[in-house]
This record gives sequence, C-alpha cells and structure tokens, in this order.
Amino acid sequence: MSKYYLFAPGPTMIPSETLLEMAKPILHHRTKVFEAIFRETEERLKWIFQTKNDVLMLASSGTGAMEGAVVNFLKKGDKVITIEGGKFGQRWGDICKAFGVNAIRHMIEWGKVCKPADIEKLLQDNPDVRAVFWQASETSTGAAHPTKEIAAIVAARPGCISVVDGITAVGAFHVPMDEWKIDILISGSQKALMLPPGLGFAAVSDKAWAFAETSDLPKYYFNFKKERKNLAANTTAYTPAVSLIMGLNYNLKNMQEEGLEKVYARHNRMARACRAAAPAMNLKLLAEVPADSVTAYLLPENVDGGKVTKGMTARGFTIAGGQDHLKGRIFRIGHMGYYDDFDILQVLSAVELTLKDVGHHLELGQGVKAAAEVLGAKA
Amino acid sequence: MSKYYLFAPGPTMIPSETLLEMAKPILHHRTKVFEAIFRETEERLKWIFQTKNDVLMLASSGTGAMEGAVVNFLKKGDKVITIEGGKFGQRWGDICKAFGVNAIRHMIEWGKVCKPADIEKLLQDNPDVRAVFWQASETSTGAAHPTKEIAAIVAARPGCISVVDGITAVGAFHVPMDEWKIDILISGSQKALMLPPGLGFAAVSDKAWAFAETSDLPKYYFNFKKERKNLAANTTAYTPAVSLIMGLNYNLKNMQEEGLEKVYARHNRMARACRAAAPAMNLKLLAEVPADSVTAYLLPENVDGGKVTKGMTARGFTIAGGQDHLKGRIFRIGHMGYYDDFDILQVLSAVELTLKDVGHHLELGQGVKAAAEVLGAKA
Repeated sequence: MSKYYLFAPGPTMIPSETLLEMAKPILHHRTKVFEAIFRETEERLKWIFQTKNDVLMLASSGTGAMEGAVVNFLKKGDKVITIEGGKFGQRWGDICKAFGVNAIRHMIEWGKVCKPADIEKLLQDNPDVRAVFWQASETSTGAAHPTKEIAAIVAARPGCISVVDGITAVGAFHVPMDEWKIDILISGSQKALMLPPGLGFAAVSDKAWAFAETSDLPKYYFNFKKERKNLAANTTAYTPAVSLIMGLNYNLKNMQEEGLEKVYARHNRMARACRAAAPAMNLKLLAEVPADSVTAYLLPENVDGGKVTKGMTARGFTIAGGQDHLKGRIFRIGHMGYYDDFDILQVLSAVELTLKDVGHHLELGQGVKAAAEVLGAKA
Repeated sequence: MSKYYLFAPGPTMIPSETLLEMAKPILHHRTKVFEAIFRETEERLKWIFQTKNDVLMLASSGTGAMEGAVVNFLKKGDKVITIEGGKFGQRWGDICKAFGVNAIRHMIEWGKVCKPADIEKLLQDNPDVRAVFWQASETSTGAAHPTKEIAAIVAARPGCISVVDGITAVGAFHVPMDEWKIDILISGSQKALMLPPGLGFAAVSDKAWAFAETSDLPKYYFNFKKERKNLAANTTAYTPAVSLIMGLNYNLKNMQEEGLEKVYARHNRMARACRAAAPAMNLKLLAEVPADSVTAYLLPENVDGGKVTKGMTARGFTIAGGQDHLKGRIFRIGHMGYYDDFDILQVLSAVELTLKDVGHHLELGQGVKAAAEVLGAKA
C-alpha cells in the first residue's frame, strides 16, 4: 500500500466529490441544461474574482490566458512594463517579445518583490507605456508583489492598463479586482480552484475592453472579443472544456458556502504555519513578502534540494523544487485549494524526516510544533 | 426518470469506465508515474494516427491545434490554399487571414467534396503555394474530401505541405498519415477518442518540421518546436491536461485491444446503416461522399429542422442541426467513438417518431428496418 500526497503549487489536490461530479455523463455544450450551468458558473467566477466584469473561460492552461491578455489589448510595437521576479514574470516578457510588443523588462531578484515607487518612476520616464504586467503571486518564488499599490499607480493613468497574473492567487488570497481597479486578472483551474489543468480565466475591465478596440496583434483561438460575445449567449467561441466547467461550478458553490473570508483566512493560517516552521527547521524563507498560496524554503548551501524533492517522492509526497538558478537551492510546498490544517502538519512531518535524511541539521518535531502553535491559536 | 442520449458530432458519449479512470486522484505532471503514462499515451497516439511522427498533445480544443498548424509552419504573406466546403473549412481560411497568411479560399458547395483535379490545377497556376489545408471529414456537412488523392498531389511538390483536419476522422475512419504522406494531421479529444473536450493533437512530418525552421508568424502558447522538445522529455511546454491524458491512455488501450480494422469496420457499418435509413425515412443525405463519423440528413423544404432537433431534445436526445445557411435545413447524427449497432437503431427510432411529429411524411419503422438490415448483414 502506498498513498499519494500532492503538495505542489499546481496541479493541486482535487476533492473526491469533485472528481465524481466531473465523472457524470458528459453534456453537450449547446444544450439548455449546460447553458444554465455555464451561466451559474460565470456568476460564481465573478464572485471569486470580486468583480462585475465578465470572466472569460478558455480551454487552455493559464499560459493561454496570459497570451490572450497580451494579444487582445496591444498594438505591435507598443511599449509595456513586465515585472519579472521569477519564472512567470519572465513569461510575461517572453510572450510580449513573441508578439512584437516592446517590453521594458523590470528585473527583480528572485524572491524579492517589486517596489511600487520603481514602477511610478518607470511610468514617469516612459509616459507612453500602455500596460504593466505582473504576478499577484510569483509561483516560482512564493513571493507576493504589492498588487494593490501597483494597480493604483496604473489606475491613475488613463493610457495604461494593469494586467495581473492571479493563477496562484485567485481563490487563495484577497485580490479584489474591482476595488483595486485591476484591468485584467488571469487565473487557471489547477490551483486554488481545485480542478485538473485545462481551464484558463481572464476577467477584463471596461478600460481594457477599450484598448481591445485598437489592438492589431494577430489572434484567433484566444480572441477575447469573440469570447465576450459568446459569453453573453452562455457559450464559448470554440468547444468549452465541459467536464472541467461542471467541476468548477461544483467547487465554486462549495467555496461560496464556506464564504470568501473563511476561505482566505484558512489559506492565510496554513501559510503562516508553513512560515513559522521554517526557522524551527533551521531554514529560511525565500520570499521577501510570502504569498498565502505557496511557501518556498531556502536550503543551506550544503543541502542538495534535488535530494529533498526525491526523498519526499519516496515518501509518497510530490512537492516542487526550484527552477532555473534556484534549482537545488529551494523547495516549495503548495497549500492552495483543498488543504486543511492537518494536511500542513502531515507534509511538514514528512519534510522534517526527509531533511534529516539528507543530512540537514534539525531537531525532529520542531517544525511541526511551530506550525501547530500557529494553527491552534485563537483567531 | 429521464435518460440522456448524446448523438452529436462532438462532444460524444464517454464510457463510464473512462469517466471513472479520469476520476482517480490527480497526478502531478512532473512525476515519474505520470511521465510513464504520458510516454505510453504518445506511443498509442502514433498508432491511431498511423504514423512514426511525433504527435503533440495540446491543452486546447481542436481549433487550437488548427491555429498551431498555421502559425508554426508559415511566413507572413505566404500563399496557401484552403479548401472550404463547410464551417470548418472556413475556419482554415479565417485562421490564415487572422495571421496574415494569403489564402486562396477554394469554395465548395456545402455537402460537396473537393475535386483533386481542381487542386492540381490551382497548384499549377500558383506554384508558390506553400500549404494546402482541408478537412478529412467536414463536420458541418458530413462530407469526406478525397484526402488520399489530395495529399498525393501535395506530396509531389517539395515546396508545399498538406495540412489535414482529422478532428472527426482520426479514430473513426482510415486516414493513415504516413502511408498517404500527410504532413500535418490534427485531431481533438471529444470525438472518436471518447473524451471530454480540452485536448488537441497535431502530428507533424519531417517535411513540415523543415518548414517550421523558417516560420516567422508569432506564437507562444502553440509553439510546436517547443512542444516537440518537451515531448522528447515526456512532458509538455505548459501544464498538460493531466486527467484527459489519463482518460486518453485508457481509451486508446481499449481501442488497441479492439484493433484498428475492427474499430473502423464498426464505424463504417454504423455509418452505412444511418445512410440506408435516409431513403426509408423519405430523406436525402446532404453529403456527396459521406464520412463514417457523422451523417447529415437533408430535410424537405416543408420541414423545419429546428423542430426536429427540439423534438429530439424533448425525447432526451441531443443531435445537431445545421449551421449558417444550412440552419433548419439539415440535422446531423454523430456516430463516432462509443457507439454500437443498437445505439444506431435507438437514435433512428427517436428520429422517426420526431419526424412524424413535425409533419414529415414517413412510415414509422422503415428507417430502423433499413438500418437493421445493414447492421445484420454478414460482413
């Protein structure tokens, strides 16, 4: 007998009930029954995105939604800023490059977060910048850029839109699109929304839709204006990922029953527990400002991160290592979606045993104890 | 109690066993366990595509794979031919237009098929044409273009590649990629492969990969060279649709056990039964050369096709109507994937009752009888 524990920053664990919901006989997408589910799902998505804007549903991974957020709103040669503090920040810059958008690639040391004043300065120096792209949560480092502050800076400029990758944020922590005046907010299915990969989301503000009117970048599959028109008729431009939408509706319904504040308090509590365990395990956190969705632990020079993820695999646990220059230097635990306090204690106990195994100096039980103290504290 | 019968040309019925296979706990895509499944699935895909070429797996609907087949192999301003005999033929032309590819849109009356001699002539008149795009099965009309013959014409020209949409062909009837020298063959998950929508496929020949070297059209999410590189490492460029790939592996395994010739003989037998029922129900077939995946019935002027699909819905059956100018004029029955002889008799009996209800002149039971005679005949 071997159990499988999934603590990666996506795909994340899926409730058995959701798996069975998606295992119901498939519906055709052009039926009244499915159209009603589609509409219900759209309304629930607005709730989790905290917006009155349309939330487009795309049959793609989150990266497809990111591409759509570039090609639907910009013109060839447009100047933009991409805030790049990790693998996914880089992706914004790479997508812009692929489509002939002129990105000022604002590089941040991986693990650090963007200073709003730097964006203010960049925008003053480059008043022709038409969009600023960043991550609410940079999955590769576990860092949370100051989304509220940067969005406010962009919102003050009529000629510039904010584009936020919320793939490991929406559903895990507070990113209120309308309140913070975010213009485009992206997400994906396989993170806090507790689904298999295959659905991308993009919520779009009126300010951004006006940009879409002058966009001349080529697009076909990710044509947001076409999707918006279809959404009004409770359908999608191309065949939607029917079974994932069924599961999404089910999960969002359950999240609504739990309540947004409780969902976010749960994520915050688990994240604080993971952070508290770091010093108790003789480790440091990578992120300057850690996100509530994923925790990245920095290893001492003498510990090989590859051995940590491998040791966890041998115990039945999938966690994530580091990417690019952080490979072998960090390990990451995802705790968004279908996780509770006891899952956190479970994964930390496996981490402790694994770290000891690979020669890291720590006292067994101290990380779990520190986490339990956070989890057990009265709110 | 009301049962649901799905006879659309996609999404199609999914075996319960497959739904449960996909309801197993989700695996992380960067694990040895999933990588082994991914490799196994890739090998099985080569079997169903009848090719030694790589078959790319994309987290998108089939349309995404179509877009990829344009943007990865052509240059801006390239001249191509799109064979447009229906809604999906049009899509080839529309995608080319969106990306600045200069398409000679070869229009065919909907329901008719392309004459190979016309393509030969067009290529002689336009020796600079770099690609010819068509459908092995035009889902909107149920017509099967002569893929073998057109592919042979293109194969004789070193500077031109053939791009075949096999979305409602692969797994339903014989389209042997290597034997017929097709350069790019596309498909999708929700048709003969008996899965939910959300996976697109593209098999690519060496001749086409050479075209990719000079392609300058913008792409990011559908970057086939990047996907090919990742495929060699048993993964995808972006998060794959894990659960659909699990289901795909399961279905392909079962199809391999049935055997390709038997799978195609079954589809052919069901298709011939559906066709035999047409005159017996006082109807004509729309398609000049009908495909074995979907049958389109032409209604007499006095019968409103909208009432037929609606009447079928009331009986629990989802079938498809006509699109664009064929709206109200035809109805379509999909019979690819998880269907057997008795499903065909079932849907035809519902069609007969519905046609009688909406005032069409027919004798009940005659369509079913004609079909049963085909199905019961010794092979």
